[in-house]
Order: sequence, then structure tokens, then C-alpha cells
Amino acid sequence: MESGQWPGGPPTIIDVARVAKVSRQTVSNALNAPEKLLPETLARVLAVIEELGYQPNRMARSMRTHSTRQIGYRLDPDRSNTASVLQDRFLHALTTAAESAGYLLLLFSAGETRGELTRYADMLRTGSVDGFVLSGIDPGDPRPAWLAQRNASFVCFGSPDTDSTDCLSVDVDGAFGTEVAVDHLVAAGHRNIAFLGWPETSGPGEARLHGWQRAMREHGLTPDRCVRALDTLPDSTRAALDLLERAPTPTAVVAASDTFALGCYAAARQRGLDIGRDLAVVGFDDSPMASLVAPALTTVRQPLEEVGETVIRMLTAELGNQPVTDRHILLKPTLVRRDSA
Amino acid sequence: MESGQWPGGPPTIIDVARVAKVSRQTVSNALNAPEKLLPETLARVLAVIEELGYQPNRMARSMRTHSTRQIGYRLDPDRSNTASVLQDRFLHALTTAAESAGYLLLLFSAGETRGELTRYADMLRTGSVDGFVLSGIDPGDPRPAWLAQRNASFVCFGSPDTDSTDCLSVDVDGAFGTEVAVDHLVAAGHRNIAFLGWPETSGPGEARLHGWQRAMREHGLTPDRCVRALDTLPDSTRAALDLLERAPTPTAVVAASDTFALGCYAAARQRGLDIGRDLAVVGFDDSPMASLVAPALTTVRQPLEEVGETVIRMLTAELGNQPVTDRHILLKPTLVRRDSA
Repeated sequence: MESGQWPGGPPTIIDVARVAKVSRQTVSNALNAPEKLLPETLARVLAVIEELGYQPNRMARSMRTHSTRQIGYRLDPDRSNTASVLQDRFLHALTTAAESAGYLLLLFSAGETRGELTRYADMLRTGSVDGFVLSGIDPGDPRPAWLAQRNASFVCFGSPDTDSTDCLSVDVDGAFGTEVAVDHLVAAGHRNIAFLGWPETSGPGEARLHGWQRAMREHGLTPDRCVRALDTLPDSTRAALDLLERAPTPTAVVAASDTFALGCYAAARQRGLDIGRDLAVVGFDDSPMASLVAPALTTVRQPLEEVGETVIRMLTAELGNQPVTDRHILLKPTLVRRDSA
Repeated sequence: MESGQWPGGPPTIIDVARVAKVSRQTVSNALNAPEKLLPETLARVLAVIEELGYQPNRMARSMRTHSTRQIGYRLDPDRSNTASVLQDRFLHALTTAAESAGYLLLLFSAGETRGELTRYADMLRTGSVDGFVLSGIDPGDPRPAWLAQRNASFVCFGSPDTDSTDCLSVDVDGAFGTEVAVDHLVAAGHRNIAFLGWPETSGPGEARLHGWQRAMREHGLTPDRCVRALDTLPDSTRAALDLLERAPTPTAVVAASDTFALGCYAAARQRGLDIGRDLAVVGFDDSPMASLVAPALTTVRQPLEEVGETVIRMLTAELGNQPVTDRHILLKPTLVRRDSA
């Protein structure tokens, strides 16, 4: 929908009702049940619709059927390598699950200057979708509370702030993932296990950090070797070199993403250390490169197919006014064992 | 749309017109311009619509506005690593370009048993979209001719068979990409330049092979060292080992994808050769791993952002009945120079 031609946004059914001096229901009837109106009223409402340039299309459709069979999904603007690969896997899972339930995904991005909430507002106003799936939820993400206030149906992949809204959500237990990684390394005899992760602004990153801390303490070890970096290769390589220079040198690293893990590979290479023999590394995400690097990377894999199915199951239940007993579902990732740890 | 409840598919406007003994235009008027009809006619048509369970939603909308402002896109089922990363980049480019033109992408997959053309048929019948973008075009792909026969608007990313249809298309000149790779290697002093690519069923793969052959001949070299494999790491590693065993050993390999290039890395490692010093490798696609491996991979990058913009520009021109002078656009990829060649 192009809204540029209307300074205050395209006209709504409310505008039509006000100008025609009728109720919203009468405007709706004019479009969907014209036989219920007096001919004069019908003619007046249709004239106002014409005059204002009101486009009843999707709105009228959703009023008639209460369903567009479409779900809105914003492509996550995070373009880091790992995120891109995960997003593609998740998008496939989501599309397939939606189709099985009789829905199609309506994609948008919010890379524009207009602001991301404007896009959600557009889609709600035009009735283009029955509900939304949100991903890439960060701490302080304004979308869940904003959509909840407008009574929109939506499910989050991620963990929205619990104080702002009690919306439906599915997340992967990142802390469980790094706990399993630590367990695996401890079972192989490691005691000096460091952690390499994102700066503190990352929600999923903090969960992965906390899992490492918790598992270390459970094994009677002190989680005091933690370095933070951006998950680019240069930055994570620098951070890994920093870890390797501290005494006592860690014998293993739990990396918060596969890119961080590859930073450890690069740092080990510079120090003449063999990954898998001198330094064990566990990544996170099982990106395509995990099986392509040498040695192949042991890494934590998110069950994105199950996330997609669960998200769609919850959303369609909500749309069908069926009870959703468990409003926050946490799925467990699994360790994919290869040769790096 | 759930069509299971109607044995012959959901009722169409034609069914309504037949049963109500009126023209299609009258059915359309009943929904969109009821003031034009006699009250008895209007009542009869609405009763038939109700009786048949005809859902005029999208159809009515597209009749009123001649536009859904939605474009259908089937997620490519090819799940190879490289394809997944490219698809995500292309999907972003497409979504952004579509939004700038006032359109949204309606996603579907065709992984179901119902058959992929059925999905296109569904969307055409229900009028869910104004047109389609096709990607993952293989030789013999039935979609372009099928859609052209139905007068659907669509643009292909790829090169459909020219004998079956003269549809709008945008493609990346893969042959140009491998030519540039050969030029780069020859300029660095290489003469024994091998090619590692897909089996012959791949359309884009053949273009990349032909570019290598043509450039070799232009430099007075014989393109006789070509090995084909699947672009998985084990298979491409085996194929690269096979190349390295032949005398005289190639000093450089042009790989048809980054995964093939990483197969060369693995093979070189097994033979004790240093990539970049003993063996030069050029990949194709500039996937995220290209900059993460050591040494970083020199590779050919497809201008997917430009492809997305061009596809949307052509489709919206076609939808707006504007002339499209150049119906087949071929965009040039670029060589990203890193350390492997």
C-alpha cells in the first residue's frame, strides 16, 4: 500500500463512517451486505468511499471471512553471517509449517527510514494478515508490547521482556546448549574452559553465557575466563588470541556462535596450536561451515524446524480461539559432535 | 485457502454466474457496485454466493483494484549450503526492492506431495498475487511455460529454456565469472588451470564450465582438466584429490562454487600443499565462509541485490502495462580478491 498520497495515512473505515455520518457497521454493510441498507444510505456511503479514496479491499475481506490466511513476517535485518544462515533455515521451517496449516507468509523488511512499527501498523490497518510471527527479539524490543496493545495475534521466536507483555513465545534454551557443551568438555578431561561471546547487549548471548557459568560451577570450576567480541572473524580472532595469552592457558573454549569458534581456529593457527588436540572448541548454531572446516566443528544445533512448527501451531490455535495452555515454550538444542572437541 | 471441502476445487465466480443465471459482471457488480443492480437480481446473486460458499475475497479485491500489491515467491527447495546462503541474500534483496515499489512478497514452498504447479494454480485461482518471481530455474523447468500459457505475470531469476517461452528474465553471467577467474589466474602466471564443477544436469553449472573453457582457449591453453562432483565437502574433496593426482598437477583450480573450493582446501591439506602458495583456488558465490577460511577465499560474487531490483522493476513495469524493452537481462558478477589465488 502506498500511503504517500495521504498526509495522515490512507483513509480508514472510521474516516468513511465519520464523513458519511453513519456507523462503521453501516460502512461494512455497504460493502458486504448492501441489501441491508436503504438505497439513499448506500449511495451516500459509496460516494464517500469514492471521494476519500478508501480502499476497503483487505479490510472488507477480513471483515467478511475473519481470515486472510496470511501471516506477516519481518525479515530480520541482522545480516551477520551466522544469522543469515539460521534465518534461511527458520524461514523454510516457518513457510512449510504455515502451508501445512493452510497459511502463507507475507514477507516484509523494515530497513527503511519509515520505522519498523509503521510497517506493522500498515498491515494491521489494511488487514493484510491474520497475525504475525516475530523473530530477532532483542531486550527492549518494542514490537511485542506494541502489538499486544493493539490486540494483534502474534507469536515470538525469542524471549520478549516478560514485564512488558505476556505474549506467546517459543525460544531455544541457549543456556542448556552451553551447559551441554561444558559437560561434554569436562567429560573429555578439560578444566580450563573459557567462554567467547557477544557484548552484553545481546539477549541470546547472555543466555549462552549463563549456561556456561552455571555448568562450570556445577562441575566445581570457576567461570572466570570470559571474553566478549563482535562475531566477525577479525574481532573474534583478536579476542581468542587474548584468551590464549592468559595464564593458565585455557584448553577449551565454548564459543557463543560458529563465527566465534572460527576465530579460535584462526588464533590457534597463529599460535601453532592444533584444534582438537591442543585446544578444544565448541561452537553454536551448526552453520554450514561447521562441517566444512578442518577439523570439523563440534557445535550446538538449534531445532529450528521444531521452532517453526511450534510457532505456527500456537498462532493458529490463537487465531482459532482455541486455548493455548503453555504460552512460553522452551525447546532444547542438541550437541552435534564432530572433531574439534 | 482450504480447497479440501470442495471436491472440484472452491467455487469460482463462473459457478456463481451459472447458478444465478447472470453474467460474471453482474456477480462482480453484486459485490462491488451493488447500486447498479435491481434489488431482486442482487438478492438472487447474494443468495447463490451464500449457497455455494463462494469466497469472493481476493478475487473481488483484485477485480476492484486490479492489484493485490502482492508478489508470489516459491522458496527454492535446493537446500545445499551455498544455495541456502545465496537464497537468503536474494530474498532480502527481493523483499526490499518489492517494498520500495509498494509490494509485499507472499512466500510459499512446494515441498509437498501436491506438486509445485498446484500451488501456482491455487494462487492464480484465488487471485492472491499480481505476479510471481521464479528462481532456481533448471533446464526443463515447467513453470515458465505453464505460467505463460495462463497469461500470468512473472519474471525469472535464471535462464529458462528459450524455445518454450519468451518470458522476462534476469540472470547472472556465470560464464563471465569463470572467465574473469581464469584471467586472474593467468595474470598470476598459472597455465595448468583445472575446473571442478557439478554434474551436467545443472544449468548454471554449465555456464560456469563454458566460461572456463572459453577463457582457457583465449589464452591459448587447453581446457582438458575438468572434474565433476556433487557440491558436498566429501564428494568435492575426492574430486579435488583426483585432480591433484593427474600429471602434470594443476597449479590452480576454478571451482564452480565455494563448497567445491573448500573441497580443494581439504584435498590440498591431505597432500601437504599450501593453498595460495602451492595451489591457487578461485571459488564462486562469495558465501560467508569465503572470508572465514584460511587463507581467505578469492571468489566470484553475484550481484544479487541488483538482480532483486531488476526483477522487481521488470515485473512492476509489466504489471503497469509499461513497455519492457529488454526482456532478458544478464548482469555481470565480480571477482572478490582475497588470499587463495
